[in-house]
This record gives sequence, C-alpha cells and structure tokens, in this order.
Amino acid sequence: MIIDCHGHYTTEPRALTDYRKRQIAAFEAGRALAPDFAVSDDEIRETIEKNQLRIQRSRGVDLTIFSPRAGGMAHHVGDERTSLDWTRASNDMIHRVCTLYPNSFAGVCQLPQSPGVSPASCIPELARCVEELGFVGCNLNPDPSDGYWTGPPLTDRHWYPLYEKMVELDVPAMVHVSTSCNPNFHHTGAHYINGDTTAFMQFIQGDLFKDFPALRFVIPHGGGAVPYHWGRYRGLAQDMKRPPLTELLKNVYFDTCVYHQPGIELLLEVIPTQNVLFASEIVGAVKGIDPDTGHNYDDTKRYIDAVEWVSPEQREKIYGANALRVYPRLRARLAKGGGRPASSGRV
Amino acid sequence: MIIDCHGHYTTEPRALTDYRKRQIAAFEAGRALAPDFAVSDDEIRETIEKNQLRIQRSRGVDLTIFSPRAGGMAHHVGDERTSLDWTRASNDMIHRVCTLYPNSFAGVCQLPQSPGVSPASCIPELARCVEELGFVGCNLNPDPSDGYWTGPPLTDRHWYPLYEKMVELDVPAMVHVSTSCNPNFHHTGAHYINGDTTAFMQFIQGDLFKDFPALRFVIPHGGGAVPYHWGRYRGLAQDMKRPPLTELLKNVYFDTCVYHQPGIELLLEVIPTQNVLFASEIVGAVKGIDPDTGHNYDDTKRYIDAVEWVSPEQREKIYGANALRVYPRLRARLAKGGGRPASSGRV
Repeated sequence: MIIDCHGHYTTEPRALTDYRKRQIAAFEAGRALAPDFAVSDDEIRETIEKNQLRIQRSRGVDLTIFSPRAGGMAHHVGDERTSLDWTRASNDMIHRVCTLYPNSFAGVCQLPQSPGVSPASCIPELARCVEELGFVGCNLNPDPSDGYWTGPPLTDRHWYPLYEKMVELDVPAMVHVSTSCNPNFHHTGAHYINGDTTAFMQFIQGDLFKDFPALRFVIPHGGGAVPYHWGRYRGLAQDMKRPPLTELLKNVYFDTCVYHQPGIELLLEVIPTQNVLFASEIVGAVKGIDPDTGHNYDDTKRYIDAVEWVSPEQREKIYGANALRVYPRLRARLAKGGGRPASSGRV
Repeated sequence: MIIDCHGHYTTEPRALTDYRKRQIAAFEAGRALAPDFAVSDDEIRETIEKNQLRIQRSRGVDLTIFSPRAGGMAHHVGDERTSLDWTRASNDMIHRVCTLYPNSFAGVCQLPQSPGVSPASCIPELARCVEELGFVGCNLNPDPSDGYWTGPPLTDRHWYPLYEKMVELDVPAMVHVSTSCNPNFHHTGAHYINGDTTAFMQFIQGDLFKDFPALRFVIPHGGGAVPYHWGRYRGLAQDMKRPPLTELLKNVYFDTCVYHQPGIELLLEVIPTQNVLFASEIVGAVKGIDPDTGHNYDDTKRYIDAVEWVSPEQREKIYGANALRVYPRLRARLAKGGGRPASSGRV
C-alpha cells in the first residue's frame, strides 16, 4: 500500500473560498460570519476526481493524508473567532472528501491558531476532528503571524497544552507554515522552506522531546534545507553540546516533497529510512512538467523508484510502513476496513 | 592558486569587541562613541597566525577573501551612526590583516546598514574600503532588522543606489545576514540558511538583473536550501512564467560552505561549475571535528577533492578561477603582485 502523507485540498469548491472572502469582509466590518454555505457531494466529487484522485491513481498511490490548503490557513487574518470559523469550515470539507473516498483519503486538520492566542484554544477543534471525524493528524503552523515570526519557538511552553492533547490522541503534526504576508518571503519558495529549516533547528536547541517523548512531527518539503546541510546540523549540535541528531529522529520525520532526482537521492542517503515518509504535495506548490524529464516536477514517486540502491524493504517503509507507524490512527482505521472513520476515543 | 571566498575575522582582537560593548553602552546612554581603541600588529598576528592562517595553510588554501564577523555586524543595534562607527572599526581591522598578510587575505567590507535607512548611506564606506583600502567586495545584509525582515526585498528599488555603486566599482556582494534577535531563528542554524534561500527566491521573483546586468551576488552556505530544492525552484520559475534559472546564474553564485560529503556532491552536481566558488568559513559556524571522518566539518576542500567525477578543469574553476572572475579587483590585485592594495579608481 502506497501512502502519500502530504496532500492539500487546493481544488476546494468555490463556495468555500467565497465564504472566506465574505468572512474577511465581515470581520473588517466588525462582525463574525460563521460558515453559511452549502456544497453538494457532486461538487466535491468533481473537484477531487479530476485532480487529486486522478493523479494519485495514475501514479499508483493508494491513499493521501489530506488537509486543507496550507496557504489558505492564513492564521494572521482576523482574530481567534475568525480562525475558528474558517478552520471548522475547512476541516469539514476535508471530512466530506474522506467520507466520499474513504479508501483514498485520510484527514489531517488545520488548527484554529491565531497570533498571540494560546494554542490551547486549538484543543477542541483537534479533538473534534480526531474523535468525531476520524482525522489522523494535524498541521501545526510554527508562525501564525505568517511571515514575521512574532510568536515563541515550537519548543516554548506556550505550545505545551496542544502537545499534551496531541500525545493523548496519539496524533502527529506536520509542521507547516501558511501563506506569507511578508514581501521578503515568497510563500512556497521561501517561507515554506524556511519554516521547515527553522523548526528543525528549534528542536535541536530545545528539550521538547524530553518533556514529550511520544510527540511526533513530520517536517515537510524534504525537511527544508536540513538534509542538504546535515553536516552543519550535526556539527552545530555537537558544538552546542546538544544530543546527536539521531536522538531527534525518534520524534522527527521528513517527507519526500523534493522535486528533482539529486535532491531525493541526498534525502534518502542522509536521513535514515525509518524517518522518511513518501509525499508529493500534488496540485501544490509546483504544478508544471519538467521539460528535461517530460514528467511532473512533483512526481516524487518516479525519483524514488529510480534510486537503485534502495532495497525493497526500505522502499516499503518509505512508501507506507513509516506512515502507518507515525500515524497510528491511520493504521487503526485501515485495520477496520478503511471505510468508516475511527470510533471516538483512544485507538 | 586556491582561494577561499568566505572567511570572517571571528578571532578579532579583544579591544575591538570591547569597543563594541562600550559603544552600545554609550548609545543606550544617549551618546555616540567613535572608535577609540588601539591594537598592535603583534596582537593581530597572534589572532591570525594561530587560527585562520594556520588552518588555511594546513589545508593548502592560498588566500581567503576576508570580512568582519558576520554575526557581529548586528545592524539592528543602535542607529545609523552606531552602525557607521562600528562598521569602520571592523573594516579597518580587516585592512590591518590584509596589510600584514597581503598574499593570504583580501578584504571584503561590512556595510553600515541600519533598519529603515536607505542603503545609499553605505556608499561612502563601500567606496572608502574599495578605493582606499583595496577591498574586493562587500557583505550585504538582506535583513538589517536581524530576524524580523521588516525591510523591502533585495529586488526593491530601495537598494538601487548601492547597487549602482557596486557596479561602478565592479565589486560583488555576498548576501549574508547577521545575528538573529528573533528567538525563532538560531543565527547560524536557521537565520543564515533562511537568508540564503530567501535571497535566491527574491531574485527569481524580481527583474533586478535586467536593471543591473553587471551586478553579482554570491549566496553563501551552499545557497541555503536552493540546490537541494533546485527542481522546486525550476518549477516555481516556470509556473510563475519567470525566466529559467540559468538566466539568474549570470549574476548569482554559490559558495561551498556545505559540511558533509553528500551535500557537496549535490551542490556540484546541480549547480553549473562556473557558478560554484570554493569556501569553508573556517573558525566559523561549525568548529568541531566530525567523529565519523576524523576531520573538521568545515574542511570543505576534503569533500570537493573526494568527488571523483569533477575534472581538473572544473576543479580549477571552483578553487580559484571563478573567484577571480567574480571578484575582478582581486584578479587585478594579484596581477600587481598581491602585496599592495589595488590603486584607487576603476580597475
């Protein structure tokens, strides 16, 4: 079974994005606007079958761990209530997709983060998505200011209430920034990659996993700059008298959203196999076809398949077994036949 | 001849750093404090011969392009005057080193940047360093706020007066951030690498090199995340209908400060040879010995030497010929015997 751990609903129905526009206009006029729109199952089928489902099937991918558009989270917009309304609407749409295609998609939720607000405020929505909707993880934005990094690092106690709930529910987070409202940072070309790199360095500096040995993070986009600079990070940890990076690898995983052959080869060479999770982020940051290969830049399966020195056992881990280990609720859900959301409560 | 294009005076004499402390205290007390300290040649020899010169000789490096400690620039501290006084003191110290060891060091200057101040304010110090002191380039901080990125991107017209002077003097800039006062960003582990990645993406988005076809930038630390994500950047440029990255490579170069074998191999595989400049940043971000190899992490020459498929011609470019092309004032200086600073005016 091949699992892509990183997909976003970037083809979301127009009614959802229209609601967002009206919600922001309402906020600017001093009002909150709760979700007030309807989308038919056929509309959802239309957006999914022509896009994500078509592509993942054509590439032999069985299931995508699916979450709302990352750039759309835009936690800096409005206030806590704005973020909650928008987050619930976005997560409900993911739930619709996962209910229509239970064997092809498993949900990961957006969190209703807001700059300056305690992440404890995200607990009810996380619990709703996991316990009621059968989601298997969440996306955590390390910079709810969306490009100015005005909050504390991920290792700060500020985040601990949310981490406690993640551990209790046994769900990982993908550390995923959202859009950038800072003109210095192109969102998918700089802010995303910088967010990944920044998170990993924060983990080196802090003692987070001493306090939460069961907490798990997936760093997307191949870990930002980290695998390319693995020697730098090993050396920095050593100079700072921090534990070796192998300690962090008990809690930190990397996806394979690296869009060329040499990058994938470096990732697979440098990062231990058990820490690499297959991912493509299709209909995502890079949609085009590489004229040098004739294939989509984001067809990461093709790059991985082309690495001859990866053994069948390693390939199985990268393509699915690691995801089932990092997302135990996905494993439980598949064990039950996949179709139904996991039952409420602990798995 | 082997040229290391990226070295900082991280072993600077105590009198310089003591001055900085007194200068900041004076600023906080409402006064400016111009440089008021003395350092003997013997003190400088002591700091250099036991450190940078010893190491570069032991590794077979002939000359280092040498600039003030990058983390020490700290442009967010104080005001424009603070930055100018500190910059002049720091650059003068580099000049002392280059005068004592004219065959082993060539100067690159810090610029007196200050948040919110036009980079035009840097022109006199750039001209002084290049025309009077014989420096061959400058370090340009893309984020004078040191971690909050509150200024405009490098492609903004804000920077144009400085670029005009750089072109007139025919000197490149290394795009190098300084310290980070944002607790999210470890300076050498996140801010440095993010700064590199950010600058390159800004260059993709803007039309800077249409306006300045002769402007040249070196992106340090192996280009941040860029070579590892080369497919992503190629694909983003394509999706955004920007020119192919090969166009940018007429103006943008990468150094080799990547501290492990797989990273160096990726860099040399992905980036055309004529765009790669040898560098180590010794006595820099990572000072330790890699227990897996028994050698310093920052001994990048060892990694490059170990790449068998690099031809002698390519090696010559990486180790020196490219630097002489990117830093024409260095070439001119060496042609004159190296010993004396380049004469004033255009070379």
